[in-house]
Amino acid sequence: MSLSLSMPAPAVMPAPGDAPPALRHLLGIRGLTRSQAEALLAEARSWKAARAGRLQALSRRPLAGRRIVTVFYEPSTRTMTSFHVAAAALGAEAVDLPVSRSSVQKGERLDDTLETLESLGADAVVLRHPQTGAAHYAARHLSIPVINGGDGTGEHPTQALTDALTILERRGRVAGLKVAILGDIRHSRVARSNALLLELLGAEVWLSGPAAALPPAGAFGGARVTLNRDEALEGADVVMALRVQRERQARGLLPPPGAYRSRWGLDARDLERCSPDVVLLHPGPVNRDVEVDGRLLEDPRCAVLQQVANGVAVRMAVLHTLLGQGGGRSWSTCSSAAGW
Amino acid sequence: MSLSLSMPAPAVMPAPGDAPPALRHLLGIRGLTRSQAEALLAEARSWKAARAGRLQALSRRPLAGRRIVTVFYEPSTRTMTSFHVAAAALGAEAVDLPVSRSSVQKGERLDDTLETLESLGADAVVLRHPQTGAAHYAARHLSIPVINGGDGTGEHPTQALTDALTILERRGRVAGLKVAILGDIRHSRVARSNALLLELLGAEVWLSGPAAALPPAGAFGGARVTLNRDEALEGADVVMALRVQRERQARGLLPPPGAYRSRWGLDARDLERCSPDVVLLHPGPVNRDVEVDGRLLEDPRCAVLQQVANGVAVRMAVLHTLLGQGGGRSWSTCSSAAGW
Amino acid sequence: MSLSLSMPAPAVMPAPGDAPPALRHLLGIRGLTRSQAEALLAEARSWKAARAGRLQALSRRPLAGRRIVTVFYEPSTRTMTSFHVAAAALGAEAVDLPVSRSSVQKGERLDDTLETLESLGADAVVLRHPQTGAAHYAARHLSIPVINGGDGTGEHPTQALTDALTILERRGRVAGLKVAILGDIRHSRVARSNALLLELLGAEVWLSGPAAALPPAGAFGGARVTLNRDEALEGADVVMALRVQRERQARGLLPPPGAYRSRWGLDARDLERCSPDVVLLHPGPVNRDVEVDGRLLEDPRCAVLQQVANGVAVRMAVLHTLLGQGGGRSWSTCSSAAGW
Repeated sequence: MSLSLSMPAPAVMPAPGDAPPALRHLLGIRGLTRSQAEALLAEARSWKAARAGRLQALSRRPLAGRRIVTVFYEPSTRTMTSFHVAAAALGAEAVDLPVSRSSVQKGERLDDTLETLESLGADAVVLRHPQTGAAHYAARHLSIPVINGGDGTGEHPTQALTDALTILERRGRVAGLKVAILGDIRHSRVARSNALLLELLGAEVWLSGPAAALPPAGAFGGARVTLNRDEALEGADVVMALRVQRERQARGLLPPPGAYRSRWGLDARDLERCSPDVVLLHPGPVNRDVEVDGRLLEDPRCAVLQQVANGVAVRMAVLHTLLGQGGGRSWSTCSSAAGW
Repeated sequence: MSLSLSMPAPAVMPAPGDAPPALRHLLGIRGLTRSQAEALLAEARSWKAARAGRLQALSRRPLAGRRIVTVFYEPSTRTMTSFHVAAAALGAEAVDLPVSRSSVQKGERLDDTLETLESLGADAVVLRHPQTGAAHYAARHLSIPVINGGDGTGEHPTQALTDALTILERRGRVAGLKVAILGDIRHSRVARSNALLLELLGAEVWLSGPAAALPPAGAFGGARVTLNRDEALEGADVVMALRVQRERQARGLLPPPGAYRSRWGLDARDLERCSPDVVLLHPGPVNRDVEVDGRLLEDPRCAVLQQVANGVAVRMAVLHTLLGQGGGRSWSTCSSAAGW
Repeated sequence: MSLSLSMPAPAVMPAPGDAPPALRHLLGIRGLTRSQAEALLAEARSWKAARAGRLQALSRRPLAGRRIVTVFYEPSTRTMTSFHVAAAALGAEAVDLPVSRSSVQKGERLDDTLETLESLGADAVVLRHPQTGAAHYAARHLSIPVINGGDGTGEHPTQALTDALTILERRGRVAGLKVAILGDIRHSRVARSNALLLELLGAEVWLSGPAAALPPAGAFGGARVTLNRDEALEGADVVMALRVQRERQARGLLPPPGAYRSRWGLDARDLERCSPDVVLLHPGPVNRDVEVDGRLLEDPRCAVLQQVANGVAVRMAVLHTLLGQGGGRSWSTCSSAAGW
């Protein structure tokens, strides 16, 4: 198996040719080619280096004058802030449209809201929505790029790219690694996007969780599914614990916190089953001492804060790929000072 | 009747002389002269052209260093966002002061809040408030420009200017047109500002709605009031449906949604009574299939999204007129980079 | 007693040497030296002059590319806005992380939240938190500067610096003045920071309030404590009324509003006991006719709005001191246009 991502040291500035052709939206990992995914990761590494190294690339404000609108029907401070930081780093302006799950219930139509945004002058939309498929729906109704910030039990592609970048930095490659994802797999868009992306990049993905939380066969690509947590952990190079949704515990769909912890929570002993240089991931925010023993969060094998930092770089790559070099609306490319 | 607004192609940049003299605030259409209104509309057209044409006018960031504060005691994502986008397009910074209707109930005094804002360094305030007259009250207490973003059942002047600009673009003129406004007229600041502005510009305005929703004589200038909806629609060049406030339906002050739709909702058959090139307007957000048949929203005669785009241009014109060329505080005009 | 703050007219731009050495955080007045406090006040005066005089200092955007994050577990529109305005005036970007007191109750760990912020790329954090000591706790966990925006019954240092600057402008000096602070002293971080700062600068501080609201001996430095309000007011050069927390009245810990007003509220007759050029301060927002007779707010001796304006200048000084000239993260100093 080739080490697909043992690419040469990336050029600091992505050359135009690096951009995957014809990527108009980022709706999911499903639909991405391996070369598109690799190009996004390479560009993310470049932006991270540019931010760390005070490079000219950023002082040119490559997305100056562009406005990115975040529309989050489910709150997520971390993901939303990450997009806002990424936009600002590229010189773009990010604004949040304050909406809520209750807007969905009041029967406001998503396409009406989004078309209004486009008329107001948005250059791209980042959408989080409780309904699976919402981002695809939005992309069909809008002429500007749509980024899926999480749709129901569908996908969360920027999180998966973030996690892949973190693995790449820690282990030098993705291909050939054994990755265990633990928790409420079936309802997790993070698990789905990660399983699809890591498999695309050549990893061997194992999924494990309570019986009711395991996915139907084939729903997560070719990932192996097991009720035997130890089998998933055995020799794993990467372990990803998913966040427990407390409301699902309250409804009896998952074991209550204490039982969850003793059965599925990760502690130092569990990591001993894994590869000695295992990487511990969690999409955050962590419920300490539920999914992960709090002490493990200080462990050098834990990469949670690195994931946060990489989330910014990945979102810069996505925004720049979709909006840079003349992508999106043309009128707003005229001047780095134009605003909108 | 002269075609008052069949003005020559507007200069791309408004010359200083275009600005209406002595417009310190925009509190309502009442109090505006026809030439002031026409100047605002001409400037809005110019800004729209400037944004579309990548012109230098915007790259100079004419309001750089100015800060516009929005204070919305009633939520309105669309209007507030429109002001923020307009401010950013001119290089100004817009911030929202998070307040709520509950602040009014807690007895916080509006003038205390506004004086604090002025001391903090705001250059202009956009105020939405449930009490009629709130913007006039604010203007008496502040030395910076006040823009009425909607006051109780009073006025909503930027919405009316937006609608007039849309009519102008669609029909080439306002004077001499028959305009029908339908719905809960009596309590609608949108209806009031539109009736006053369109009459000022030479249109013939008809108002129609449920009996309890019709205004007392003279309350809306010289507009004609009728219970006979068909009479209002007959040959109309413009039809504007007002948004139904669901809480007023819940309190029995308006027919419930189903009854409202069948009696007052607009559908394709209704438009057949109108002029062949009728323009359908709605201030948004539309309650689909209540005020307007959902299918009409895709009809080319429907200008709802054009209204949204024009709202930005109109607000740019208003902000630039009130703050440009040395308006507002003098200290903040010093440098395009000064911030505040 | 020397007039410690009768400093020479400050240079418009603070010279590098003015910055107090080694001020990494601003956690409280306790821990500041007199020269550090004086340097911050001198720098605040310079920034105020720079803003008023259209000076080049601001057009250089000295904190361009830096991002300040405000994290307010207790809402405070005024303080938060003041920090945002100060940041923007220096060219930095300010974002608010939306949190709430309920986040504290849900057991989200403060250090997890703050470490996430740092990973996202924040250059400084302004923290308001209901627990005393929260800012010190944050400073121990973060490598970026922490500014205490108010911690429980601990300190509120930027408010005290604001008040000292206002006294300085009104009276030309702080040293040797008699300052009376009235109200719920014991639980007031504003009172504590003011007592410590004004004493540090050489003033004679008197504290007076209801018996249950007086502090234990020594808790507020060397300030004199008295139940006799008239004794505190007699000949006072400065009178500061504290804001009443209505929830504490509701719980019976303070007299109810009517009783509070008649016993502790300030009116024109009270000011007659004071120095003829007494300065009336209040941290705001004022409960009119509770702590202060509403008519006094229009009195020229009342400096409440001047306090608001000075709050911006003080926060500019604090941010510039902590982040300017290479403070904070080094990577973000590279370019005035870099964003983050």
